[in-house]
Amino acid sequence: MINIVIAGPRGRMGSEAVNMVLDEPAFNLVGCIDRKEHQIPALAERGIPVYQSAEECFYAVQADVLIDLTVQEASYQHLLMALRKKIRCVVGTTGFTDEQLEKIKSLAEDTNTGCIIAPNFAIGAILMMYFSKVAAKYFPDIEIIEKHHDQKIDAPSGTAVKTAEMIRSVRESKQQGHPNEVEVLEGARGADSDGIHIHSVRLPGLVAHQEVIFGGEGQLLSIKHDSMNRKSFMDGIKFSVNQVMNISGFVYGLENVLELE
Amino acid sequence: MINIVIAGPRGRMGSEAVNMVLDEPAFNLVGCIDRKEHQIPALAERGIPVYQSAEECFYAVQADVLIDLTVQEASYQHLLMALRKKIRCVVGTTGFTDEQLEKIKSLAEDTNTGCIIAPNFAIGAILMMYFSKVAAKYFPDIEIIEKHHDQKIDAPSGTAVKTAEMIRSVRESKQQGHPNEVEVLEGARGADSDGIHIHSVRLPGLVAHQEVIFGGEGQLLSIKHDSMNRKSFMDGIKFSVNQVMNISGFVYGLENVLELE
Amino acid sequence: MINIVIAGPRGRMGSEAVNMVLDEPAFNLVGCIDRKEHQIPALAERGIPVYQSAEECFYAVQADVLIDLTVQEASYQHLLMALRKKIRCVVGTTGFTDEQLEKIKSLAEDTNTGCIIAPNFAIGAILMMYFSKVAAKYFPDIEIIEKHHDQKIDAPSGTAVKTAEMIRSVRESKQQGHPNEVEVLEGARGADSDGIHIHSVRLPGLVAHQEVIFGGEGQLLSIKHDSMNRKSFMDGIKFSVNQVMNISGFVYGLENVLELE
Amino acid sequence: MINIVIAGPRGRMGSEAVNMVLDEPAFNLVGCIDRKEHQIPALAERGIPVYQSAEECFYAVQADVLIDLTVQEASYQHLLMALRKKIRCVVGTTGFTDEQLEKIKSLAEDTNTGCIIAPNFAIGAILMMYFSKVAAKYFPDIEIIEKHHDQKIDAPSGTAVKTAEMIRSVRESKQQGHPNEVEVLEGARGADSDGIHIHSVRLPGLVAHQEVIFGGEGQLLSIKHDSMNRKSFMDGIKFSVNQVMNISGFVYGLENVLELE
Repeated sequence: MINIVIAGPRGRMGSEAVNMVLDEPAFNLVGCIDRKEHQIPALAERGIPVYQSAEECFYAVQADVLIDLTVQEASYQHLLMALRKKIRCVVGTTGFTDEQLEKIKSLAEDTNTGCIIAPNFAIGAILMMYFSKVAAKYFPDIEIIEKHHDQKIDAPSGTAVKTAEMIRSVRESKQQGHPNEVEVLEGARGADSDGIHIHSVRLPGLVAHQEVIFGGEGQLLSIKHDSMNRKSFMDGIKFSVNQVMNISGFVYGLENVLELE
Repeated sequence: MINIVIAGPRGRMGSEAVNMVLDEPAFNLVGCIDRKEHQIPALAERGIPVYQSAEECFYAVQADVLIDLTVQEASYQHLLMALRKKIRCVVGTTGFTDEQLEKIKSLAEDTNTGCIIAPNFAIGAILMMYFSKVAAKYFPDIEIIEKHHDQKIDAPSGTAVKTAEMIRSVRESKQQGHPNEVEVLEGARGADSDGIHIHSVRLPGLVAHQEVIFGGEGQLLSIKHDSMNRKSFMDGIKFSVNQVMNISGFVYGLENVLELE
Repeated sequence: MINIVIAGPRGRMGSEAVNMVLDEPAFNLVGCIDRKEHQIPALAERGIPVYQSAEECFYAVQADVLIDLTVQEASYQHLLMALRKKIRCVVGTTGFTDEQLEKIKSLAEDTNTGCIIAPNFAIGAILMMYFSKVAAKYFPDIEIIEKHHDQKIDAPSGTAVKTAEMIRSVRESKQQGHPNEVEVLEGARGADSDGIHIHSVRLPGLVAHQEVIFGGEGQLLSIKHDSMNRKSFMDGIKFSVNQVMNISGFVYGLENVLELE
Repeated sequence: MINIVIAGPRGRMGSEAVNMVLDEPAFNLVGCIDRKEHQIPALAERGIPVYQSAEECFYAVQADVLIDLTVQEASYQHLLMALRKKIRCVVGTTGFTDEQLEKIKSLAEDTNTGCIIAPNFAIGAILMMYFSKVAAKYFPDIEIIEKHHDQKIDAPSGTAVKTAEMIRSVRESKQQGHPNEVEVLEGARGADSDGIHIHSVRLPGLVAHQEVIFGGEGQLLSIKHDSMNRKSFMDGIKFSVNQVMNISGFVYGLENVLELE
């Protein structure tokens, strides 16, 4: 049984994490940290205490793992306190400065305490990006189609941009398509990221989807990820909680915890 | 048994048409028209005569239907001659002037002779465009993804542009996506045709593919056509030969011969 | 402005319908019918009255349209009462007997009052089935892949079975695949419905999806519907409310209200 | 420049290999081995000699690599002869006995000569299977949809069966779907390979396609390979010719030559 504290239990990710931990037989939710609110009905009815500070929480309950899904500054303070008490950390917060990451890393290593920070806990998305990087070595002609609901402001998505970056690290720069290609309607060929074309589809009814297509003579290889809702992050958090029990020290990025061979 | 003459038997479409007619039990290939070459081995070994002019051909053999897959000027002359002899016509030639079309039309009507001219004989592509036009009445948020081999010069494809035009005829102008949408990488949102976004993918391994995606609250409807090779046009030609036996007068476009209800 | 009464406002469909009507500027929710509960917070705070019977409701408020999303027996009584008062009806209830349908039909016709009963209000699903029926005339080789979450008990889905039935009404019986086809693993070729093969995929992460694939020489035509949540039914209900204002008499099935040409 | 001999130049794979080697600037086709025919026009016009035996060929020309695309018995003899002369081998032949493979392996190792035997040279298919094996560690709910033209006799395809086997090596046995699942139409849920469901679609217009779908809470990961024609094998042969120059000894399976990290 792993004793868990969740920081940020009312957030969009945090509330899903509360459900996940309560549902998982091998996990035991011993408390939550929430700076603003003391009473959370779903927790109260199960007798799970909510503390307004990490200090108070770690003093009152015995935790093996802190799952932190708050914001940068609060999260940073929680991590320092947890690691000093040798409480392992699984962290979904983004926006840490390099100095903060450096400090967290040294502390995790000095205390021999496992700490996993990941900007993306959707295992499927991590695998899609990793497989794309491998495939790009053999199929340098690549296009990315990402599809999101029509309330999304930016195009392409952060995941598409990151996928193209990862591919660039193994693929030599290449202009794709016919050298004399002509856009009869401007923009038809999508965005160009070092020769990789990225297409952003926005429609009501879509959620969050990405397909990376590799073309070779007489064949196509496609790797697609569909994310339907926030539950898609829970498998990665659950996996990380189990993994953080077995590591000592600092890991950044879920891809560095997964066994990818 | 329908007696058929093919004009243009050595062309890319024409040579497929020869095979199709030879394979179809209800069709009888009685001759071909080829301005340049007299001897075509596949025809010679079956004893099928090749004539250098339509005049000569229609004088020598008894034809029910002329399948014309040549070029504009030649085709026009063949049609005039055929219709005057009350030989029905199935025509894949493009590029006729409005005057030529007008003349062909009157002649077909005056002689009560069936004549079908179609710029595209791929029934699947015709249905995709027709279904898209119907669906657009109920789902005004639409994006088109067309995919072709990377030797194609122009983007978007003619079929994508035509699909968008057909949709425009039933859909009020609409700007799709978030009003504050931002392209972090230029071109990501594709080409904009009256609010409909069109994305052109070009990769080796692709042939000719198009998907029209309709988004609504909580649902998506997608209509996709994949064309693997020129054989995809033969079903439409075969269908038109059978149809042209039952009509008198002129029809332009395969969609006007298909029973779409 | 259309004055609307909703019967069954607390059900899964009904609660979505309440939101839809409240959101639509041209609609005015004047009351609800709920046999069990008087107080519904979302309605109370907007001052929308809830009545325990249709009689009471139609006496108290002036309604143009009744949206009925209850169960068979209750719905039947509501419809009789509404039609007698010349209140138009849009009904999602299933399970009416033939006699009940007959009675509703005569009453709608006798009173010249529009009444639309539809077992499925997802316009996208209706179009998918309708388009499939048209395409089957030209492409008799057809396979259906339907995909649902892994909590679904029955396979294939009702929609897949209905799609195959609709196709059968226009397609001659045909055994597909190679005549000497061998299943090395039993079941590989899926279910066989008059030669049409149906494949049911069940996985966590899926919601409700169906693709109908038509194969021809050198081409494929695919029609796909993805339903992400119950909101997909609201477009069809909204559309029906607007349509029912313009018709007099009885219509069964959304496909008979849509303009499909 | 790599000097190459091709055995089996008139076969379906062999004739594509001849074209690939002639097109590749770094490759030099020095001769072919063909037991039956001496004169092959495409080779004759380029002055490339054809020999009726490997002995004769290796005596007459200086080869770095033998590409063998013949049948088992001939191929076995060619390999023994080539390895003894320290000519590297790239072999697509299948059906070797365990004893033959053992003998080839020892000979390659004893002579320090690179030898790659691969039953499948389509890099995309190899990657699909390898990625599926990795993904199965994290997503144990898996279904495979494979699609082929309707002239294929057996279902499921060999690739689908092999993919399921590879997955089984890393995934614990698991019954998928709802425990009370009911097939309303027999076969709907496809073939069951240790809980993995396999669906075989057969339609005209299809070539050779496979998709492996992984389902998790709120997400899907899909890996798809489309093979359009035999050219899809040429990239793998070209890659293997380059690799075999750098290895000494025996490798079975393209996956063991690819850099998969």
